[in-house]
Amino acid sequence: MSAYNVALVGATGAVGAEFLQLLETRDFPLGQLRLLASSRSAGTTIRFKDQDIVVEELTESSFKDIDIAFFSAGGSRSKQYAAAAIAAGAVVVDNSSAFRMDPSVPLVVPEVNPDALTGHNGIIANPNCSTILLVMVLAPLLKLAPIRRVVVSTYQAASGAGAAAMRELETQTAAILAGNAPEPEIFPHPIAFNLFSHNTAIDETGYNEEELKMVKETRKILSDDSLAVTATCIRVPIPRAHSESVNIEFVGERPSVAAIQSALAAFPGVVVVDDREANVFPMPLYASGRDEVFVGRIREDISCPNAIDLFLSGDQILKGAALNGYQIAECLIERGLLGGKK
Amino acid sequence: MSAYNVALVGATGAVGAEFLQLLETRDFPLGQLRLLASSRSAGTTIRFKDQDIVVEELTESSFKDIDIAFFSAGGSRSKQYAAAAIAAGAVVVDNSSAFRMDPSVPLVVPEVNPDALTGHNGIIANPNCSTILLVMVLAPLLKLAPIRRVVVSTYQAASGAGAAAMRELETQTAAILAGNAPEPEIFPHPIAFNLFSHNTAIDETGYNEEELKMVKETRKILSDDSLAVTATCIRVPIPRAHSESVNIEFVGERPSVAAIQSALAAFPGVVVVDDREANVFPMPLYASGRDEVFVGRIREDISCPNAIDLFLSGDQILKGAALNGYQIAECLIERGLLGGKK
Repeated sequence: MSAYNVALVGATGAVGAEFLQLLETRDFPLGQLRLLASSRSAGTTIRFKDQDIVVEELTESSFKDIDIAFFSAGGSRSKQYAAAAIAAGAVVVDNSSAFRMDPSVPLVVPEVNPDALTGHNGIIANPNCSTILLVMVLAPLLKLAPIRRVVVSTYQAASGAGAAAMRELETQTAAILAGNAPEPEIFPHPIAFNLFSHNTAIDETGYNEEELKMVKETRKILSDDSLAVTATCIRVPIPRAHSESVNIEFVGERPSVAAIQSALAAFPGVVVVDDREANVFPMPLYASGRDEVFVGRIREDISCPNAIDLFLSGDQILKGAALNGYQIAECLIERGLLGGKK
Repeated sequence: MSAYNVALVGATGAVGAEFLQLLETRDFPLGQLRLLASSRSAGTTIRFKDQDIVVEELTESSFKDIDIAFFSAGGSRSKQYAAAAIAAGAVVVDNSSAFRMDPSVPLVVPEVNPDALTGHNGIIANPNCSTILLVMVLAPLLKLAPIRRVVVSTYQAASGAGAAAMRELETQTAAILAGNAPEPEIFPHPIAFNLFSHNTAIDETGYNEEELKMVKETRKILSDDSLAVTATCIRVPIPRAHSESVNIEFVGERPSVAAIQSALAAFPGVVVVDDREANVFPMPLYASGRDEVFVGRIREDISCPNAIDLFLSGDQILKGAALNGYQIAECLIERGLLGGKK
């Protein structure tokens, strides 16, 4: 069996750590593993399968003999170093937003649009976390009926802003309980016992970048430029799983709730949690650390004859980032789409 | 000047405490104050304007000489004792859901529909907290253009479930930070670092009671039975201010964002916080303890030519409950709508 050499750019971040965990615990045909980070983190060691691996500084010559380079170190590093990785024969799976809307770059959720991988040019983009969770639920519904419009409000965890943001949620909460009022450091506003509009830049439309990612990336992944999407993205004091309240209007008659539940339950990576009697529905606490996207509160919208409402939760670091990237790598291998040597 | 005798049913609860605070600090023409609660709380004393007032047990004879009885002790107590208060000559301002949808009972937000008070039959219903915050924003928009449909997702604070729920948020959060995993007591699910669908009963439509309150009460307050509303109500780990993400579709052409901002800013009790440059919008932390409803993220919905999106935060205990009830009492006095002696 072939083995593949993997480089991990951003090995010391929250998503990098989860990606390593996946490589360590799952059945990946791993050859060499090279851990890369900025000069600041270079020289530190990371424990992997009973070995201490030294983190190397990311440079243009970091990718010799690498088959798959997973980038999770921000858009500017992806832009700067992806070409070097490709030139060295690697396929780049990029977790940043740098290439997502590039028409020549596939934007892939393996359960949803794996065929988009075919004919890639060396880069595969891993979608925005909120978008991945949303399309995991829209894709099975599209098998039932075409969708006209999606209105989504998010409840986004601290983890989307990185490991330091998760620590800030914890330390700031502890400080407030102790009667102190610490200054925010990572987030622009207090995150403990508070929530706020996602703090990405807002353009002339009034939407922030996170919201526009959900609009544009959803259309690209689902190959439907006419799909109408509006999103309001809110950061909540939750560690690592996102939730979304979603209103979905179909083009024609809406499918029955039973048909929707069946379609969702049959879709790989989706779990229906929809117990009206016991009042048990998706919750970020129980979605944390889990691979699946949990969906419930599925009901006919009483305000619109063609629409439904539902609510979902999913782990932002796993399916929202590292796991989806890992699945892209698996899918590339399965389909023989890696460019390099075997 | 006349003075009015006030009875407060539920004096020891979160809303009762805030109502007392309003009576103490604002310019209310208060005569006698009678504090009422269940036999469990009777006998305790509450400090009010440098006096210790003994809490009395609520009975049918509790309302002698009372002009205004504010009830905030749950629907069953309202149903059991409101008639006795009215028979004694008091006007009941009821914070429970017991009478809200009774066609003979006005459901009032004083800034929105004060005229509904005229011709009351002894009971005025104080609306559901989430509904009050929503109609405070819908009412000024209705002056600009008719509204067809509202899609709202809430971010509801612990306070909506009472003072014990607020304490549970705090103690459970502290326990989790200390490495423990306490059993939920007040809420059915963990509230610390978690969120969940509002835990009221769900009917055959799939909506929970809180959501149906938002649908039905909004229509009643705005006197528009054809207004289409869908709501998804979510409890978040925030102490005492609710937030709402609201999509509003107008019947015809939508007003401009500037016109909407002006109309909202001109409406009493509403503050526009909408600084796109600085990324400052309504937040529950800053809405807590404040009278006003804060609204921002006002933008044209890119998914629908007649719709807009916005986001609001407001104190659940104040404008969502005690303050609105207090304002109803003020409004009754101003309009000479108290039945009893002066």
